Amino acid sequence: MALELVSQARCFGGEQRTYRHVSRETGTPMRFAAYLPPAAERGPVPLVWFLSGLTCTEENFTAKAGAQRIASALGLGLVAPDTSPRGEGVPDDAEGAYDFGLGAGFYVDATREPFSRHYRMRSYIERELPEALAELPFDMSRQGITGHSMGGHGAITIALRNPGRFRSVSAFAPIASPMNCPWGEKALTGYLGPDRAAWRTYDSCALIEDGARLDGLLVDQGTADSFLESQLKPEWLEEACARAGMPLSLRRQEGYDHSYYFIATFMEDHLRWHAERLAR
Amino acid sequence: MALELVSQARCFGGEQRTYRHVSRETGTPMRFAAYLPPAAERGPVPLVWFLSGLTCTEENFTAKAGAQRIASALGLGLVAPDTSPRGEGVPDDAEGAYDFGLGAGFYVDATREPFSRHYRMRSYIERELPEALAELPFDMSRQGITGHSMGGHGAITIALRNPGRFRSVSAFAPIASPMNCPWGEKALTGYLGPDRAAWRTYDSCALIEDGARLDGLLVDQGTADSFLESQLKPEWLEEACARAGMPLSLRRQEGYDHSYYFIATFMEDHLRWHAERLAR
Repeated sequence: MALELVSQARCFGGEQRTYRHVSRETGTPMRFAAYLPPAAERGPVPLVWFLSGLTCTEENFTAKAGAQRIASALGLGLVAPDTSPRGEGVPDDAEGAYDFGLGAGFYVDATREPFSRHYRMRSYIERELPEALAELPFDMSRQGITGHSMGGHGAITIALRNPGRFRSVSAFAPIASPMNCPWGEKALTGYLGPDRAAWRTYDSCALIEDGARLDGLLVDQGTADSFLESQLKPEWLEEACARAGMPLSLRRQEGYDHSYYFIATFMEDHLRWHAERLAR
Repeated sequence: MALELVSQARCFGGEQRTYRHVSRETGTPMRFAAYLPPAAERGPVPLVWFLSGLTCTEENFTAKAGAQRIASALGLGLVAPDTSPRGEGVPDDAEGAYDFGLGAGFYVDATREPFSRHYRMRSYIERELPEALAELPFDMSRQGITGHSMGGHGAITIALRNPGRFRSVSAFAPIASPMNCPWGEKALTGYLGPDRAAWRTYDSCALIEDGARLDGLLVDQGTADSFLESQLKPEWLEEACARAGMPLSLRRQEGYDHSYYFIATFMEDHLRWHAERLAR
């Protein structure tokens, strides 16, 4: 499981790197991006994960979110994984749609043919990649997690299923309840089959309903997001948290859309939220 | 010459827009990106131009440089043009190389067939686009200009040829002397023909040698830039400025390469340099 360094560039005094490694979970080579702030030269730094949305690779966040400036100042490491297995032999959406298959792993372990062999993004992110990161100067006792859209769903569900692992959790325009929107219903049916009981472990709202909790959760959602009403539905999350008494800071940001211009605008708030909770 | 709004997104409290218009100079539709900071709601704001490098469109800078955050805080408008004409009938490099033709207009008015019809990026940037910007809330009496690589060359030469137009000029890893590097020699030969006398108006060092001056010039150059020795050669600019007694602040940035990670790192310094000189 050795990491191969694909590229590196100095950035805000630290290093922006891209790594490649062969994943036992997905059975494919996987890439991820890692930012090492200047503080990492002196010892292990806290780590914030960023899980990306539909169609993204590890590069979108890395190139567009402007996160390195803030991570450099706050002494945070960043890791951005890819969003699905890729390569020869990896099955895709039957019609090549953007919302299933390649670039759309939805952070689940597929149980349905032909996807179950390679589409194991849950285990890749929850188990394999943290082990692989042992080579890097990250303090794995101080982890936070965030993400965008499909990756916001990923960040919240992974944190809910792994109590105590993440000291800080946030999301940008997350898919609040995949069980209750077209993107999610298509993906969960395709990867897991029609039995909705099996979907609950991949749905933030269902997990909270079933007893999982976070100490806090910061969510930003643009009011001009074209997916807001059809897919994202933050009111589901709001309701689930209210019922469970789980603290949620949901900020509706006037006029912002679903793009990286929205993410970049609020990245500093999120990384400061994480840094406060990751301080020793 | 009406501007057509192609896209807009809220970004750091302002608006990131992309426009399309039919250019009389290039004879093609051209796109450019414009950032309007929140201050533009109250009246015209100073404008900083960013000219991009080889292979870029108006989008690279806009998505990757992280400039909007700073422009928002400083109350600066930003304009990022495309780097060449594009579309059906626009001739490209005979072998489709990245360093000539599409994405590589070099900010010249071509005089050589078949390029002279469409490749008029000098006149497009110097004359036509400033007129087209009249629709936007920019204070054209307060303009600054910067750029990267081929666009750094563009920024410096355009400022040198238009004394008094730009109050502030800077560049990221500019091609210091196109007459004296393979990229430049190929482009100038292709667009202007073999007579090197005709090239001098497109060469920062030759323009300075021939008497053009700027009040000041800020240049950042990464020491790990893979094009540093073969193409960029900042020592030519250093020597020309020293001989002419023209103030140049050339900063060699240890370990930085030619990428947008380098540009993003030093963007704040540059925009602050511009803002100081663009203040009323």
